[in-house]
Amino acid sequence: MGRERRTSRRERRKERRERARAATATNMEQPVHDLPVYELLDEGGIETIHQASMEILAEIGIDFYDVEARGILKEHGAKVDGDTVFFDPGLVEEYVAKAPGQFTQLARNPDNNMVIGGKHLCFAPVYGPPFVLDLERGRREATLEDFENFVKLAYLSPYIHHSGGTVVEPTDRPVATRHLDMLYSHIKYSDKAFMGSVTSAENAADSVRIAEILFGEEEIRQDPALVSLINVSSPRRYDDRMLGALTVYAKARQAALITPFILSGAMAPVSTAGTVAQQNAEALAGITYAQMVNPGTPVIYGSFLTNVDLQSGSPVFGSPESQVGLFVSAQMARHYGLPFRSGGMFASSKIPDAQAAYESVMVMLPAVLARVNFVLHAAGWLENGLTAGYEKFVLDCELLGMFHKFLKGLDLSEDGLAMQSIRDIVPGGHHLGTPHTMKHFRTGFYRAELFDYDSDEAWKLNGAKDAYQRANENYKQQLAEYEAPELDPALDEELQAFIAQRKEQLSQ
Amino acid sequence: MGRERRTSRRERRKERRERARAATATNMEQPVHDLPVYELLDEGGIETIHQASMEILAEIGIDFYDVEARGILKEHGAKVDGDTVFFDPGLVEEYVAKAPGQFTQLARNPDNNMVIGGKHLCFAPVYGPPFVLDLERGRREATLEDFENFVKLAYLSPYIHHSGGTVVEPTDRPVATRHLDMLYSHIKYSDKAFMGSVTSAENAADSVRIAEILFGEEEIRQDPALVSLINVSSPRRYDDRMLGALTVYAKARQAALITPFILSGAMAPVSTAGTVAQQNAEALAGITYAQMVNPGTPVIYGSFLTNVDLQSGSPVFGSPESQVGLFVSAQMARHYGLPFRSGGMFASSKIPDAQAAYESVMVMLPAVLARVNFVLHAAGWLENGLTAGYEKFVLDCELLGMFHKFLKGLDLSEDGLAMQSIRDIVPGGHHLGTPHTMKHFRTGFYRAELFDYDSDEAWKLNGAKDAYQRANENYKQQLAEYEAPELDPALDEELQAFIAQRKEQLSQ
Repeated sequence: MGRERRTSRRERRKERRERARAATATNMEQPVHDLPVYELLDEGGIETIHQASMEILAEIGIDFYDVEARGILKEHGAKVDGDTVFFDPGLVEEYVAKAPGQFTQLARNPDNNMVIGGKHLCFAPVYGPPFVLDLERGRREATLEDFENFVKLAYLSPYIHHSGGTVVEPTDRPVATRHLDMLYSHIKYSDKAFMGSVTSAENAADSVRIAEILFGEEEIRQDPALVSLINVSSPRRYDDRMLGALTVYAKARQAALITPFILSGAMAPVSTAGTVAQQNAEALAGITYAQMVNPGTPVIYGSFLTNVDLQSGSPVFGSPESQVGLFVSAQMARHYGLPFRSGGMFASSKIPDAQAAYESVMVMLPAVLARVNFVLHAAGWLENGLTAGYEKFVLDCELLGMFHKFLKGLDLSEDGLAMQSIRDIVPGGHHLGTPHTMKHFRTGFYRAELFDYDSDEAWKLNGAKDAYQRANENYKQQLAEYEAPELDPALDEELQAFIAQRKEQLSQ
Repeated sequence: MGRERRTSRRERRKERRERARAATATNMEQPVHDLPVYELLDEGGIETIHQASMEILAEIGIDFYDVEARGILKEHGAKVDGDTVFFDPGLVEEYVAKAPGQFTQLARNPDNNMVIGGKHLCFAPVYGPPFVLDLERGRREATLEDFENFVKLAYLSPYIHHSGGTVVEPTDRPVATRHLDMLYSHIKYSDKAFMGSVTSAENAADSVRIAEILFGEEEIRQDPALVSLINVSSPRRYDDRMLGALTVYAKARQAALITPFILSGAMAPVSTAGTVAQQNAEALAGITYAQMVNPGTPVIYGSFLTNVDLQSGSPVFGSPESQVGLFVSAQMARHYGLPFRSGGMFASSKIPDAQAAYESVMVMLPAVLARVNFVLHAAGWLENGLTAGYEKFVLDCELLGMFHKFLKGLDLSEDGLAMQSIRDIVPGGHHLGTPHTMKHFRTGFYRAELFDYDSDEAWKLNGAKDAYQRANENYKQQLAEYEAPELDPALDEELQAFIAQRKEQLSQ
């Protein structure tokens, strides 16, 4: 590719981004968490967990089921014995320190670029469900149409900052090429940042190539265009599929969200301290590896930590043990100066009933107070993650809006204290219609559109609809009114050509 | 009353209490909050609110609609102009300092005595609804039978520490004598601590007399037997009814829960800082007054603070503004060294649907992290407090159980770290059935009985019941199996005789 052609492509990209910026549909604003963080453990407690993790890394070891990965680890000073890799504390410290504490992920609309880390929060939709649920059609296998619908709903919400990854599994599409359909949907139906495929090294490479077409080869090496979910197969295992993808992304300097998937009582002991120590060891092993592959490549310290119901073996979400685990995990990530992922609107419930809502806030509110930087599954999750709920998605978004408002904290200015208004109103009087009230009428209080504040009488006259029914009407209306963000036809054509070519290759 | 008779009464009481202790039905344990408290404001912010409140107290004033109260206030150094009372900061400081930071409320079963203040939490049921709701019968006016049912459900829950007060309004009983029926129900159907009547000075005096019969005249002056809810009619008004009751209780050294009832945007400005400043001034005025009546009388700094929906004027519960208000109010109460009341499982929703559950946790989790000492409305609240929900009550109790577990924090002992278990399990292995797991099988994780953790298939085979339906079955079963705690027949007779006599007097 000649310099001239590259320059003109770069200019075209710049123009496209400016157009995308102008066409932004929603008033999205990434929340910055300037409030105090809830610190459950003291420094001594953090050190205890740290030391236990170092013992796991140095003496018990982590398995890496990939020859290339073990080679890289050995080359950089880790001890390798069969599949098992042992890390000295000094080695972990050295490499973990190379990871940036904060980075920016590119979005097709530059107004939607995401700062990940520091005091910034980013809410991304549910990830991975093979089923969807809505009130009328019930639970069924997810399709590409459902995938597109959830991308659209995420695009429309000012409180979802990211288009996510496998928002649902499009089970009606061939497994081998499904990742291409998903990536294209994120680009076509949204202009927010999105995630890459992790189903294989090859699919990760396709994701990188698509990001290069969209943003430019050099541009994505400056700021990553992909954040991709690398799960650890706890206890103490990185499988070949995840390592293949992680290696591809690290080499291309794309961000990896390295997350031990742990249910205490199954993949870890019936003990939150032991579970966090194990999680910490597993996460640090992957982060160390990514920094060995490419020092400075952006990573997120991930935690997916809850417990099983010991009677049935099923996962339990919103449990008090998982809340403690979340607060402490966030402290560990901050201890290493790393961006942190945890939380989500998790529920074990099969439907968006009271159980689902109780469970969801029991996770999400701690996530906010712990200053989680990246919240995957921030909307739509049901049935232990097996189902994405349409109604649950839009209901969860109401809560995310509330968290945005909460994070603005307390206004202690003269206007915030409103002493003149307090003076002006006689005892027993009211503040409805005062100049101060009129000034703050529109934005003074967050208003949840999907929540009912009517009297019992008015509510019954309106059909006595519960939250599930109101959310059903709402999501359908949103989809009916949806308009896609503009996508440059030449770019669209280039993307489609690449995808067609890859589909042909992969179908052979 | 002669000394001999008094002594023998005291002995009988002691015996009764020992019997009550032996007969305790539930495994109630008051949670102690040893975790860090979430402090939203820094010291400078607390000082700003404090100064604004002092300005309100000194310059704007609080109305006291009671001649005796104004007399007492004037006598102790407050400036009185018509109904309005002005307080110098030094005067407020002097009298607020006389209130104890912690006290013990007596319960009929001494194992259920409540520590109120410090690091202790106390969860009390919903208070005041004139309506009740259940799945089968819908919303209807509350009766004494409903009152008794909620007392029974509160008695049966290990996570409700207090029998409360007007758990529902028994609308089928005459207004003039209703307080006697309610007090008797608390004593007859529960052995937990309870609240006194505040509907008039006379009813407060009846409450004190009943407490004297139950615990002894001297005993209740050592440790209060009643905590009673004194609402401020915000903005800046104490009405004659509440002042009458407050004066009676303070003279008898019974605890008062002094609570400005404030909806920002109606009784206070559209601003959380201004609302908290006003609330602080109102609460401190009442607390100062109580200490003037009887220095050292136990009080609780109360906050009932949320905002209206500006479009409809209706209250909104679980709002982000109310969360900020709760955290900051708790800090103010701690600043003055006072026990604090706030929070509750509040909901605007008419039914126990997803909205109700989202709203409830959005208030209750901040209440726990803010270390609220006394949580009124900790279970059962629906429809802005107009309705007590049977199903909501038992669902809320599940969450209270989770908070009990959360407050135990993180066990960093050798057993908590479980390093040997981590060592013993091979990569990819599981911890089900290990010695460590078996040791912690029963108590390792909190299990919500009313939450469904089954697979979608099993859930459907069991009738696809939502949380509302499961809770319906649960509360009916609890009431069917309920057995009243033992009540000494002689005491019962004495109480009934007093109540019969008062009913006769009040019906004339």
